[in-house]
Parts: sequence; C-alpha cells; structure tokens
Amino acid sequence: MGYPETATGFMVNSQKEWTKFEKKEFPLKTFGDRDIDIAIDACGVCGSDVHTISGGWGDAPMPLCVGHEVIGRAIKVGKDVKTVKVGDRVGVGAQIQADLTCDNCKADQENYCPNAVDTYGAKYEDGILSQGGYSSHMRAHEYFTFKIPDNMTNEDAAPMMCAGLTTYSPLVRLGAGPGKKVAIVGMGGLGHYAVLWAVALGAEVTVLSHSPNKKDDALKMGAKEFVVTNDKDWHKKYPFAFDFILNCADATHKFDLPAYFSTLKVMGKFHNVGFGDEPLPRIPAQAFAPNGCYIGASHIGNRPEMLAMLDLASKQEIHSWIDKVDISAEGCKEVVERVYNNKDVRYRLVLTNFDAQFGKRA
Amino acid sequence: MGYPETATGFMVNSQKEWTKFEKKEFPLKTFGDRDIDIAIDACGVCGSDVHTISGGWGDAPMPLCVGHEVIGRAIKVGKDVKTVKVGDRVGVGAQIQADLTCDNCKADQENYCPNAVDTYGAKYEDGILSQGGYSSHMRAHEYFTFKIPDNMTNEDAAPMMCAGLTTYSPLVRLGAGPGKKVAIVGMGGLGHYAVLWAVALGAEVTVLSHSPNKKDDALKMGAKEFVVTNDKDWHKKYPFAFDFILNCADATHKFDLPAYFSTLKVMGKFHNVGFGDEPLPRIPAQAFAPNGCYIGASHIGNRPEMLAMLDLASKQEIHSWIDKVDISAEGCKEVVERVYNNKDVRYRLVLTNFDAQFGKRA
Repeated sequence: MGYPETATGFMVNSQKEWTKFEKKEFPLKTFGDRDIDIAIDACGVCGSDVHTISGGWGDAPMPLCVGHEVIGRAIKVGKDVKTVKVGDRVGVGAQIQADLTCDNCKADQENYCPNAVDTYGAKYEDGILSQGGYSSHMRAHEYFTFKIPDNMTNEDAAPMMCAGLTTYSPLVRLGAGPGKKVAIVGMGGLGHYAVLWAVALGAEVTVLSHSPNKKDDALKMGAKEFVVTNDKDWHKKYPFAFDFILNCADATHKFDLPAYFSTLKVMGKFHNVGFGDEPLPRIPAQAFAPNGCYIGASHIGNRPEMLAMLDLASKQEIHSWIDKVDISAEGCKEVVERVYNNKDVRYRLVLTNFDAQFGKRA
Repeated sequence: MGYPETATGFMVNSQKEWTKFEKKEFPLKTFGDRDIDIAIDACGVCGSDVHTISGGWGDAPMPLCVGHEVIGRAIKVGKDVKTVKVGDRVGVGAQIQADLTCDNCKADQENYCPNAVDTYGAKYEDGILSQGGYSSHMRAHEYFTFKIPDNMTNEDAAPMMCAGLTTYSPLVRLGAGPGKKVAIVGMGGLGHYAVLWAVALGAEVTVLSHSPNKKDDALKMGAKEFVVTNDKDWHKKYPFAFDFILNCADATHKFDLPAYFSTLKVMGKFHNVGFGDEPLPRIPAQAFAPNGCYIGASHIGNRPEMLAMLDLASKQEIHSWIDKVDISAEGCKEVVERVYNNKDVRYRLVLTNFDAQFGKRA
C-alpha cells in the first residue's frame, strides 16, 4: 500500500532475534483532526528500544518498530492543528497520545495520563499498534509534536526528545538551579544530558561514576567534580552534600543504596530515570531514616517542559554528544548491540540518512 | 549509690531473655549546664522498645532500660537552663542530645544531626550509656525536654513524645491540611495518632487497613473513610486519590507496594514511619513511574514540631487512646509481650504508678 495508509520501517519480529531487523510496512492509525504526518529524518537510539526488543522489560507486541526520539518534517496536518504547519521541522518523543481531559492532563501531568499511548508498542483506540521511528513516517498527535528551533541540527535534537526530556523534567521539578548541589549518577545517554541541563540551569554538578574514564568529558560538560564510586567508602566524604541525586544508571541493582542516600541533604531525593532489567536492591525502611530521604522515579516529562528544554538548548547552544549511524537493517543491528553492550556509546547514537532508505517523502 | 549518681530501672540483660526485666541501678551521665533531671511518672511503650530488646533491629548494648516516651517532674535544672524550672511537668522523646551546631541542627533538623544521641542505648561523650524511661529518673538536655500543657494528663502526653511526634512531623512536612487527602496505613500505636493529627490539621483522612475490625474506632477518630486492603483489587477504586500515604505498619514487607503507589497523586509520597524487622519488598524503579511517586521515611521530628504538636493537642483537647499498666517487672513483661504480639493494644500502652516502685522522688 504505502504511505498514507502505511509506513515502512525496520522491524524486529521476535525477542529471540532482537538484533535482526527487517524492512517492512506497518499500518498507520486512522488520521485524526489534530494529527500530523511526519517524514522522519533522524531517530535517536534509546535504552528503552533495547530493553523492549530484547525482552528485558518483559513481553512486547511483535513485529515491532522501535524508536521514540524522532525528528522529521511535517508533510500533512489535520484540520484542527494549530501549532505546526506543513514543512515545519518537528520532533516526537516517547509519548504520542493522552486523553487530555483527565485531572492529570489538566494539571500538565499528561505524562501520567492513565490513557496515555506510548510512541511504539501500544494500542490506539482503532486497534492499530503504535510503531516507532526507525521508519519512514510517523503519525503523531499535535500535543506530542514539537517544533524544533532553527539553530539545532536533526542529530542534536533527536535524542533530546526522550533522553533530554526524561532528565530535564525531574531536574526542574526538583529545583536544579543556582545554589543547588546536584549529583548525577550514570553518565551515559541519559546522564550526559542530565549534566548538560543541570549545568545550564545553574546548579553545581557532581558526577558519581563507577568508572574514572569519563572524567574529562564530565568536566568538559561543566561538572564541577567527578567522584569515582568504586571505593566502598566514597560516600564518606560527602555526608548530607547533595540536594538531590538524579540516577541515570541501568545497573542500580548493584548499588549500595544507603551509601548514596547518605550523601543527600535532609529530605533529599534519589530520583531514578534509568530503568534497568533488574529490580532495585532490597532495603529496609530504616535506610531512609538517617536523613529522611526518598527514592522514586519519573516518566519522561510534559509538553511545557519539552518546550522549555528546547528553548534552553537553543539559547545556550547546547549540543548533544552523539555518534551518527546510517539507518539500515545493519545500522539498526549495530546501534542496538552497542547500546546493549554499553560499548563505544559516547553518549547517544542517532540513526540518520533516512532518504537513502525511504526516499525524499515530501 | 542512688540518685543523683544513678537511677533505678527495669532492665533487660539479654536479647535472648527480652521479656525478663530486672530492677536495678544504672549510672546517669555527667550533669551538664543545660541538663534537667526528671523524676519519671509515666512512660509510653513504643514498638522501638520491643524491636530493640528482642533483637529485631539487630544487636543492642546490654543491660538496657528502654522507654522513650517519658513524662515526669523536673527536680533539678542546670545553671544554663532557660525553658524549664524545678517543679515543671516535662516530657522527653526518642532523642536526648544533638550537637546543636551542625548545618542540620542549625536548620531545625536536629533529628538528623550526625551526632544525635538516642534516649536509650547510645553512648554519651563521657562514655555513659543512655538509658530509657522504664525507670526512676532521666537526665535530659533542655533542648529535648518539653513542658507539658496543664490540661493534658501524664498518660495522654507520654506516647505523644515519640509516637505522636513521629507521625505529626511528616504530616506537617508533607502538607496535611484543608483540601489534602491523606491515607493512613496501619492504625496501631503510631497510626492512631496519624489519624488524630491529620484530622485535627484539617485533612480528609482515609484509613487503609488489612483488618475491618478497627473501622468504628477510625471513624470515631475522625477518618472519613475506612478501606479494607485484604481484597487484592482494593486499590483500583482509588487511582491517583491521595496526596500522600503515611505508612505506620510494621509488616510492610508483606505489602504489594505498587498497589499502594497507584493510589497516590502524581509525585505523591509513600512515607514510612513504621520500621519493621524485615526489609521492604523488592521493587523495580519502574514501579514509581506510573505517577512519578516516591517512597521514603522519617525519623521522629524536631523541637518546633514537638511544641506545635503539644499546642495542637492542648487546644483541640486531643486524647491518646491508651491502656495503663502499673510499672513493675511483671508490668514491663506484659506490655512488651502485648506490643510484640500486637494483641489487645488499642492503641498505645503506658506504664504508670511509678511512685509505688520508686518512691516520691522530689
């Protein structure tokens, strides 16, 4: 059939063969009055993509096209769309729909809407499965489609759609800014944005890392201090030191959580945005008692935060630290394997050169 | 020797025989210029007493006299004491000293002072082990000694010193008040205060309980609703319902935590003040993601909160729901066994009639 009934993407058919990508068509949802069709030009590679196709987070519907860090051009807009016009450069992140009428949506908490639809692997009302951005086209609701500032490249912008927002939102909600001391754990795809944003917001940033080999990068990104957490007593130098910790690591199950907690100020938060395949370590409630701290997590962010993040990145000319890989079955295999093995990823991979696979798509 | 060098108390000699109390002398710390000597007239029985002597929380120094919900009369005050005079009726809770100079103390967070001394089982600078209130006398620092309002009985006031403050502090820090919906889990010694305070502060209170048999009491205390959590789908009727949950239960290791989390509003908190013998259930970081919630805990409260709580209880004539037991070796055995077995405790036990064991002590 082809567009506008279908899009073409690189899809995985089974979690057992999660590195085998096949180029094929999938149906697009029924076009709605606030929908926008996007010809995709770049897509970041998120840890979620890998957790989903490899089965780390459990079953997933198949065949599936992942990718929720999408940048492209609007090629068709519904009659009620007001914020985007054909030809605009736009982005879509990890959420593509919400009811926009519930109490959460009305309170700018649409990322916690009970009727939210994920950008891939979720069912629309019409029964169509949402499919991601390792593909030619995406059909997205206007509320979850964002104009990209002119001074940002596609590759810079793509991973901000999920990794950028996922770190920006908790940073601002937890008050990162002048006078605040923020620790970032896990300086990978998510973590490098956490450092860039926290620095841009004016906070004093300390990176906590199990490995010393990212120190130079962290300091270049603006971190004030870099602490290697391999020494089991690392935390003893930082009692009650941080207003909060943003944990971007995937391997939190290996952490001595009370050691991290001890570095928080009274009622400070250990906030997770990295969701590994393993549960958190088991701890007693008493572990929170020495400073009345909390542990929690967040799920992406809301539209106002996405717009503010893009504005900040544009004004301060913040660049993503990325590697580009041409999209193809081999390219998709390469990127998910590199992310899975956490090897040679500094700090985010972006699939590009979509025209070579999918044509111009105007 | 006897007072003022020593006090006499009912002490446990070994965690193996934690219900065997022996009446004997123990040394008091060196008297300081801000210290107050108290002739004890009542002492509440806290879950901590039982966890400590029974070994549930690990080793404890022995022999030990527990009890940190102390009411008595000031019989001697140090030369720098300004807030209490001889003859005043005063109370002491679970903390008896802090450095009062660190950043936490200066920020009214002395309950998180790294140099805090617990009321029993902790070492003072002079090497003396602090001993609790199942005894004739207590020597307490002025900052941790509180005048008791005239219209409160000793028995009403005693358990407020720990159980009362432990619930009052997180309630006010988390914003309990008009327009807020607060859920209280575990309506025991701690939980019944949580209900009384939250109602007094103007919040709408829901009690979540595994057993239906406390419903009448909860409603009498002012709760608006009582939810039995035995049905595994209990939480489905309360999505995004509560601003926060104050968990006063001892058996949190048996909880389906994600079910409780699902009843929290976005970024709501599941706040623990009940510290059981078992760790919390193991959960993935993703369990916090559907509403961006947090889990944490707190440790008692600060002096301003204690004063505000006593003022609230006095003005609104809030009475503790207690049973009195005469202090003696048998009485101490009875109370710790009743608390351990969680049997016939509605909702706090208070040791009284100290004169019969220790004389008038003026």
